[in-house]
Order: sequence, then structure tokens, then C-alpha cells
Amino acid sequence: MTVVAQLAEALTLGDRRALSKAITLVESTRAEDRALSCELLARLGAGSQRSSRIGVTGVPGAGKSTLIDALGLQAIAAGRRVAVLAIDPSSPQSGGSVLADKTRMTHLSVDDRAFVRPSPTLGKLGGTAPRTRELIVLCEAAGYDLIFVETVGVGQSEAQVASMVDCLLLVLLAGAGDELSSMKRGLMEVADIIAFNKADGDRIGLVESDAATLRLSLDISRPARAPAVLLVSARNGTGVPELWKTLEQRDCELEREGTRAERRASQLRAWFEAALDEAWHAVFIRRPDLMAARARAAESVASGAASPLAAAQHLVAALLPPSPANS
Amino acid sequence: MTVVAQLAEALTLGDRRALSKAITLVESTRAEDRALSCELLARLGAGSQRSSRIGVTGVPGAGKSTLIDALGLQAIAAGRRVAVLAIDPSSPQSGGSVLADKTRMTHLSVDDRAFVRPSPTLGKLGGTAPRTRELIVLCEAAGYDLIFVETVGVGQSEAQVASMVDCLLLVLLAGAGDELSSMKRGLMEVADIIAFNKADGDRIGLVESDAATLRLSLDISRPARAPAVLLVSARNGTGVPELWKTLEQRDCELEREGTRAERRASQLRAWFEAALDEAWHAVFIRRPDLMAARARAAESVASGAASPLAAAQHLVAALLPPSPANS
Repeated sequence: MTVVAQLAEALTLGDRRALSKAITLVESTRAEDRALSCELLARLGAGSQRSSRIGVTGVPGAGKSTLIDALGLQAIAAGRRVAVLAIDPSSPQSGGSVLADKTRMTHLSVDDRAFVRPSPTLGKLGGTAPRTRELIVLCEAAGYDLIFVETVGVGQSEAQVASMVDCLLLVLLAGAGDELSSMKRGLMEVADIIAFNKADGDRIGLVESDAATLRLSLDISRPARAPAVLLVSARNGTGVPELWKTLEQRDCELEREGTRAERRASQLRAWFEAALDEAWHAVFIRRPDLMAARARAAESVASGAASPLAAAQHLVAALLPPSPANS
Repeated sequence: MTVVAQLAEALTLGDRRALSKAITLVESTRAEDRALSCELLARLGAGSQRSSRIGVTGVPGAGKSTLIDALGLQAIAAGRRVAVLAIDPSSPQSGGSVLADKTRMTHLSVDDRAFVRPSPTLGKLGGTAPRTRELIVLCEAAGYDLIFVETVGVGQSEAQVASMVDCLLLVLLAGAGDELSSMKRGLMEVADIIAFNKADGDRIGLVESDAATLRLSLDISRPARAPAVLLVSARNGTGVPELWKTLEQRDCELEREGTRAERRASQLRAWFEAALDEAWHAVFIRRPDLMAARARAAESVASGAASPLAAAQHLVAALLPPSPANS
């Protein structure tokens, strides 16, 4: 049995160390590891059709990790096995992790029925790690049937997260500034459920008023399927059972309406598009002749001899087979 | 004379309407317009070697636009012609602009010696618009010699902005939360100058203390070239002349050390890499045979018949010429 076959077997038996090892392998940027990862993922398929994939996004400081910790406990009590993929914005220069989300999930990180894994974004744009889709498949293969994908929402990344999950939960804070609230508009267009966090203490009035305003505006902008707007306090637990119930309901609807299968098909299409871009980049790594051609073009651009647009078009045209119409 | 030649001529004469028209053309996503844009940009070259390109980034609500408005006035008084490319995070679904940055730049937007243009990010990730590099070239061709590129800094986009400018100004607020400050770490690694904004009223003590802490930590983490840390109030103008002076000094240093030419060469290299990806995507639009092959692969992935990774690698391998070693 090959190393990859052994790893796949241990993983599907639910071995936590095998899962950690598989994740490390999949996140590795070494070419040999990448080949093994592709082999492993080919063995595991496209994930479970009976899992729930929930994206959790929101501005920095909205309390996403604490809320996932509280929701995860509800889910475990309901018999689910919970995995959290917490996207960890890392510095493009040092490559190191900045956030230690694990420390924010005080309950889940010590619970045997949960698996928490922060993933560095490795300088990739958009707030999701390059391997998030692959990590979802690994967790599902290991028997986790509720996958939380946590990411920082900054007005653009939500579209990317939405393409990976069945349901997108947007975590908001009341009383945010002008610019912040206009950035949230993009998020609101793709959110399935919206939760105002930190609805506690003397903030309750403010939160209730912001939530009421938001509900009104959503009824106008998304009359067909306005997302539910809930109030929670991840810190003291208020509203968390109701939020979990809403997430479960939404999940049942997906199943009943047959929309989960559709969502999964479009998740696979989005994954394929991302993989296509990656395969295109990898070409140059594997082919020294093409890498040399690219380096020559880049230097001619840097020296001012060629225009970036023309040089790029020329290089791509030279690489591709002739159009059938021209041949 | 072709339409593009006429536009290029009017542009280089400093005609504002021609500049607006050229920007609209370059931002157009229609294939015909794109061909004209490439022709226009080929005529204009890679921009001016005597301009200053300054990136301004920071979290939402840091007051970037107001600060650019104040700095722009200083620059105009110093005889510069100022263009502001304000990146406008737009919703991926509606495609519409969300922020009206122009309204935040109350002075520059009505000054004949300045040109302010918000650009939608069109759902692109990373906080910069897909055409920012090209717009810089257009503004420089029209005679603007100080280009501010404003973008929302969210921990990742700064690397992209840094690849487009000579100098990166990071605008911070004192007293930001934990998560926020860890996101800023990536920014601090690439920032050339850091300004704490809103250093006014009863906030001054807080700002001074945060600035002192930051200076200490920068002296340790970036001992070779720690960025200057300044206090400003864009609203009441305190510290703005000092910040402008620091920007000017930094600009002189770039010139004196010959680093501007190096920076410009690496800006061109980064532009070429982005153009290469774009040319790769455009291939499918121009070639119905390749588009059909991609669509077939995507459907076989969506139906579960093929794995996303394998299908993508297979398609790319089929498109490329055989390796010289194998032929």
C-alpha cells in the first residue's frame, strides 16, 4: 500500500493525526507534496453530499471565532461532528501566521468531537486560503459533517467564500461607520443569514435599531429571499440557540428543495476554475523552456523595450496551439 | 488620424475630457474597447519617469480620502499636478459603485489642478481595481505628476498596491482592536510611511501612546529602514504639512539613490505578470474551440465524473505545445 493510500485509509477511519497530516500535506507548496496531495484528493473524491458547509464572514473584530465556538457547541449537542477551517490572514512577507484563532475557540479547541484548524492565506488575496476547498474535502472524508469556514469579510472576499459553502452567515456589529456599512453591502447581497453580534449590555438598543433598519432595507433590496436578521451575544450566549436553529432550518430547506446538489455542482465548477488558473501557473514551474520564455518577456518589459500588455498577449499566443480555423 | 491617435493626442495635451474618456475606455470590459485600450496604452508607453506614485491604504474609516484631500492641497501649493485614483469597492453582484469618494475630497474634487477618479473594483479581489496600473499611465500622460492610489487595506491588498507605487503611506487609527492590529502587521512590513490619523481633541493621548509603541516595535522588526511614524488630523489640518514634507523627502531619496528606476522596473514586471494572467483568461473568449473544451471539462467536474484538479491539469496539458525534451 502506498503512503497516500495509507493516509487516505487512516483519514477515512477518522484518525485525527491522519487528518492533520493530510492537511499539512495539502497546504505544502513543495512540488513533490503537491503531486501526493493531488493523488490523495483524487482518492477522496469531492467530499460528502450529506455534510453542511457554512461560511462565516464579517469585519475584523465582529466576534466571528467566539460565535463559531458557541454555535459549534450547539451543533455537537445536536450530534454533529464539527470542523472549523479558520482562515488566518498571514503576512505576504514573513509567510507566518498572525492570528491564533484556535485560542479564540476555547470550547471547540479542546473538544474531541470538534476539529479546529487555522490556515494561513499565504499572501493570497480574498480572505480565503488557497486550499480551503481541498481542506473541506479532507474534513468530510474524516467524518466531520458540519464544516465552518471562517474568513474576514472585507467587501470582496465574500463572493469567494460563497462559492465554497452551502450557506453564508454574515456577522455584523451595530453602529459601524459609514465606509464600513457601504462595504457590507456586497456581503449582504450574498449572505443567507445575518447575525448582529455583541447584542448585550447597554448596546442592545443600538443593535435592535440597526437590525430593524437592516430588515427594512433587505425587504426592499431582496424581496424574494430576504436573509433572516438575528441578534446574538456570542459572549453570554443570548440568541445562539435561535441562530443555530435558523442555520439548521436553512440546511433542511436546501435538502428539501434539492438546492444543495445545485450548490455543490457550482462549488465544483468554481473549484475547477481556480484549479485551471493554478495549473496554468504550475506549467511554468514544470517547463524550464516556457519559464525561460516568460523570464525573457518580463525582462524586456522591465527594461521598457516592450509593453506589458503586448508582451503578455504575445507570449500566450505563442504557447497555444493554432486555432483550427487558421490551420 | 485614428480615433485612438486623436484621443492620445488630446490626452497628452492635458485635455481633462480626453482623460475621462480614456479612463472610461480602459475600464470598459467590452472586447472591442479592450483592443482600442491596448492600442492607446501602447502609444502612451509605461508612464512618466518623473512622476511620484503614492499608495494610500488603511482600514475602513481611517480617513484616507480626507487625508488625501489635505495632502493634495499641499502638493498643489508646491506646484504639483495631482491625480487621485480612488478604488471604490463595488458589489460583485450589482457591479455598481458603492462609495462616492469624490464627495469626501471636497477640495480636490473642485480644483482644476487636480483630477479625482473613483474606480470600481468590479468584484476583483485585493482592494485594487483591475485597471489601476493602466489608469496611472493615462494620468501621467495627461500631465499629472503626483498620483495618489487610494485603497482599503485589509491585510492582503497592500502587497498588490505596493507593486504599483513608489511609496506606500499607511493610515492608522489609534485604539483599534486586536484582530485589526494583527491584520495591520502585513501592512507595516511594506509601508514606507505610517500616519496615525484623527490625532485631535481628547484622542491625542491615546494616539501618542500608540504611535510610541509602534515606533519601538518597528525599530526592532525593521531596524534597517523603519518607516517614519507621524501624527496627523486630516480634519483640522494638524501635522499635514509635516506629512507632506516627509513624503517629498522620501521622494527625493528615491531619486537620489536611484531606487525609483528599480521600483519602476519591478512595477512593470508585476504588471506583466498580471497581464499574463489576463491574456490567459482572454484566450478562452477569443477561441470558441478552447472555450468549448473548457465547458466540457467543467461539466464533467460538476457532475462528479472528474476531479477538479485532474480535469484542470489535463486541459492545460492538452493546450500547451509538447515539451522539447519529449518531442
